[in-house]
Amino acid sequence: MSKNPDEARLSAWEARTEWPLTGLAVAFLVAYAWQVLGTANSPRVQWWLEVWLWVVWGVFAVDYLVRLGLAKRKWRFVGRHLFDLVVVALPMVRQLRALRLVTVFKVINRRLGSGLRGQVGVYVGGATLMVAFGAALAVLDAERNDPNATITSFGDALWWTLTTISTVGYGDRYPVTTEGRLVAGALMVGGIALLGVVTGVIASWFVEKIAGAEASIEASTRSEVQALREEIALLRVELTRPEPDSAPR
Amino acid sequence: MSKNPDEARLSAWEARTEWPLTGLAVAFLVAYAWQVLGTANSPRVQWWLEVWLWVVWGVFAVDYLVRLGLAKRKWRFVGRHLFDLVVVALPMVRQLRALRLVTVFKVINRRLGSGLRGQVGVYVGGATLMVAFGAALAVLDAERNDPNATITSFGDALWWTLTTISTVGYGDRYPVTTEGRLVAGALMVGGIALLGVVTGVIASWFVEKIAGAEASIEASTRSEVQALREEIALLRVELTRPEPDSAPR
Amino acid sequence: MSKNPDEARLSAWEARTEWPLTGLAVAFLVAYAWQVLGTANSPRVQWWLEVWLWVVWGVFAVDYLVRLGLAKRKWRFVGRHLFDLVVVALPMVRQLRALRLVTVFKVINRRLGSGLRGQVGVYVGGATLMVAFGAALAVLDAERNDPNATITSFGDALWWTLTTISTVGYGDRYPVTTEGRLVAGALMVGGIALLGVVTGVIASWFVEKIAGAEASIEASTRSEVQALREEIALLRVELTRPEPDSAPR
Amino acid sequence: MSKNPDEARLSAWEARTEWPLTGLAVAFLVAYAWQVLGTANSPRVQWWLEVWLWVVWGVFAVDYLVRLGLAKRKWRFVGRHLFDLVVVALPMVRQLRALRLVTVFKVINRRLGSGLRGQVGVYVGGATLMVAFGAALAVLDAERNDPNATITSFGDALWWTLTTISTVGYGDRYPVTTEGRLVAGALMVGGIALLGVVTGVIASWFVEKIAGAEASIEASTRSEVQALREEIALLRVELTRPEPDSAPR
Repeated sequence: MSKNPDEARLSAWEARTEWPLTGLAVAFLVAYAWQVLGTANSPRVQWWLEVWLWVVWGVFAVDYLVRLGLAKRKWRFVGRHLFDLVVVALPMVRQLRALRLVTVFKVINRRLGSGLRGQVGVYVGGATLMVAFGAALAVLDAERNDPNATITSFGDALWWTLTTISTVGYGDRYPVTTEGRLVAGALMVGGIALLGVVTGVIASWFVEKIAGAEASIEASTRSEVQALREEIALLRVELTRPEPDSAPR
Repeated sequence: MSKNPDEARLSAWEARTEWPLTGLAVAFLVAYAWQVLGTANSPRVQWWLEVWLWVVWGVFAVDYLVRLGLAKRKWRFVGRHLFDLVVVALPMVRQLRALRLVTVFKVINRRLGSGLRGQVGVYVGGATLMVAFGAALAVLDAERNDPNATITSFGDALWWTLTTISTVGYGDRYPVTTEGRLVAGALMVGGIALLGVVTGVIASWFVEKIAGAEASIEASTRSEVQALREEIALLRVELTRPEPDSAPR
Repeated sequence: MSKNPDEARLSAWEARTEWPLTGLAVAFLVAYAWQVLGTANSPRVQWWLEVWLWVVWGVFAVDYLVRLGLAKRKWRFVGRHLFDLVVVALPMVRQLRALRLVTVFKVINRRLGSGLRGQVGVYVGGATLMVAFGAALAVLDAERNDPNATITSFGDALWWTLTTISTVGYGDRYPVTTEGRLVAGALMVGGIALLGVVTGVIASWFVEKIAGAEASIEASTRSEVQALREEIALLRVELTRPEPDSAPR
Repeated sequence: MSKNPDEARLSAWEARTEWPLTGLAVAFLVAYAWQVLGTANSPRVQWWLEVWLWVVWGVFAVDYLVRLGLAKRKWRFVGRHLFDLVVVALPMVRQLRALRLVTVFKVINRRLGSGLRGQVGVYVGGATLMVAFGAALAVLDAERNDPNATITSFGDALWWTLTTISTVGYGDRYPVTTEGRLVAGALMVGGIALLGVVTGVIASWFVEKIAGAEASIEASTRSEVQALREEIALLRVELTRPEPDSAPR
């Protein structure tokens, strides 16, 4: 969400809708999990769950349009929120909507913030679990009914998600439908980003150790300068004294 | 392209030919996609597309020779443009020419430059998409007619490209021909570089946060030194005053 | 283990129990390896090994409870020692207990410490070997009796561990049981962390080279300031001299 | 090779033997490639090649023993040259000797050194190609005669090497013998290190850009201090002047 001061109305809207949308997102995930995993659901329940998923989609679509309406620089908004657009504009790729859940973590993150790296750790850990759960649901939903499918149970789907997000990819399970492959693509991007963040955090930790040593050199330079300043101040006091030595002269 | 001030004529040529060559590269990709995907093309269309691809190759070859002619330090030029040489010298590996498209992004990049990391993000994202599209075309072209091939449709080719560039590698699809494997090799190098850039950008982001804190320590040292300098200046003014106290003496 | 000064009693306990627990962990690994690999063991031996493994588990469980009892901020302790909780609370997932061995390296590491990167290298190398050995044992134990298993000998298990921790994942061997997949999950997380640490160490090495150059600039600034200070000191001595020039006046 | 000033004799020996050993290593690789790929060789040729490989191994073993004899701190030498020990002590794992070739790049690297990152790029690129070539030879040699082997031609071996070092791992080709798997293990370690170096170089490049900005702040602090020093020098000159104003007094 843009923190741009130019977009005050947009930011206000986003701040106000953050919590309700987060709640909606959680409700969406629960309903989606119920629909995908509840194979024994009556058709009536399935129908109501479907309606509910479409209603949530509709709310997110309205939210996107309102934000677009509030944004001063429309094209810039579209350019910076391409993922939101994809999520809203492709309702037929129902599976991808599960990834909307990532927004949940924007809230969690705000609460747990204790140092930059700690924050990132919580964010990455939580987002990875949530994305993995959503992706497993989505890929199961997409694959289950394909005759060539290798992913036919939720256990298989979770296992496939794990092998994919870690980029191991044994190939004992893999999606064969187009929808399943789109989910896989999103998950792989997530896996690469995950690797990048883990590496980045570790590398920055090492660099910080080094930077800490350097900062202490810096600090010693500063204390040197301060000592110098005190000496000059002393010198000045001495020079502007009424010079008692010369008085008897 | 070398920005070396010693190679003024070479740089001028490269600046002048950048746009026409970019246009040619796009035309090349379009024609190549048409040739590979248009299975219902008449032989006549296929023949003209083939001619066009060879003409574009010829233009790139001429461009390479002209640049080699303009370069003052020939061997250095060859050493620094090995990829260009490979692209030009191996016309029989027709598939690799698709990767020439990366040059397109040199232009796009120049336009969108807004901060180092933003630039890199756009470049990497765009180049990845373009390379993936070109690689999918090339591998399909190479594999399609092999009896043992597992990549026989453009959908399969795109899916294979995705599993390869992310280094997941399920193994449900893989190239079996030598040409297809060369394309795969180029793609894997791209995948490793992609991982490296993503990680590098994230790591540098963390490091910058730390460096920012350090820069503020630095800035306080500088302001300390400036304060000191002002004090000295004051002291000097005082010393060089006509000393009114001593006048009545 | 928390080094928090607020948790003095907890730290004292952890310091005192470190060595005995490390010894227990090694004994646990030896017994576990004996149980898994000793297919010709008599039922009596297997029974005693099983008892021993449960006894060690019991000691670790008691250790966890004591530490929880000593901690002042209970929830914080639970939150920061989630892995310990998982290891203690899931005795039915017997395989994961093998990963408890990582604690061994806390001790080894303390001894070999010679520079930050050296330490990390020893730690990562040692921990990787130990985790790989434990994971191979655990996955063999889990898979061996499954009719669809592809991992049926210790050699296969070691090979599978290698392909997994490096994230290569050929897919010629892969776990099919839930327990085996949990081991795989732990191993993949280890593989990602391993990649992250290797990259982080290398990146920090490059950054240090650069930081070193910068530190020398810094050092020259400091020597400049010191020279300045000496000059001021000289100036002050001159000013406070009894001024011999004015004496004859 | 240790550059330790304490080990002057060891360093001298290493400097003197560097070139001859590099030549031997190249000769070893050529003979090894001839032996592995030359399936039509007469038994006599194969026998002479075998003798030659054993002679080279013997020279390397003697070199190791001489260096051990020259080293003052024997255990430290063994600890820091574990890889050399593995290569010398395991002649029955003939395939691993091919990796001895990495030493060749120590020489190449010394010549091409132009900036830290450039050096690393050349080293990594060259070493990767050499290790990949050696590994492909070694795995082919190990697998070729196994009835379950999937790697039976040099083309397959090269392709397998590529999929392994990039950690893609399709699984269409994989080693099944113990020797082949040892080669794979060495290659995977190489793949992880490769990823690490690529990422490290890119990350350090970004960090350097930032460090560069910081260094310019630093430089401005320094010039500030220098200006201050000049001002003080001026002040001193003024104070120690014969004071013409007081002369008429």
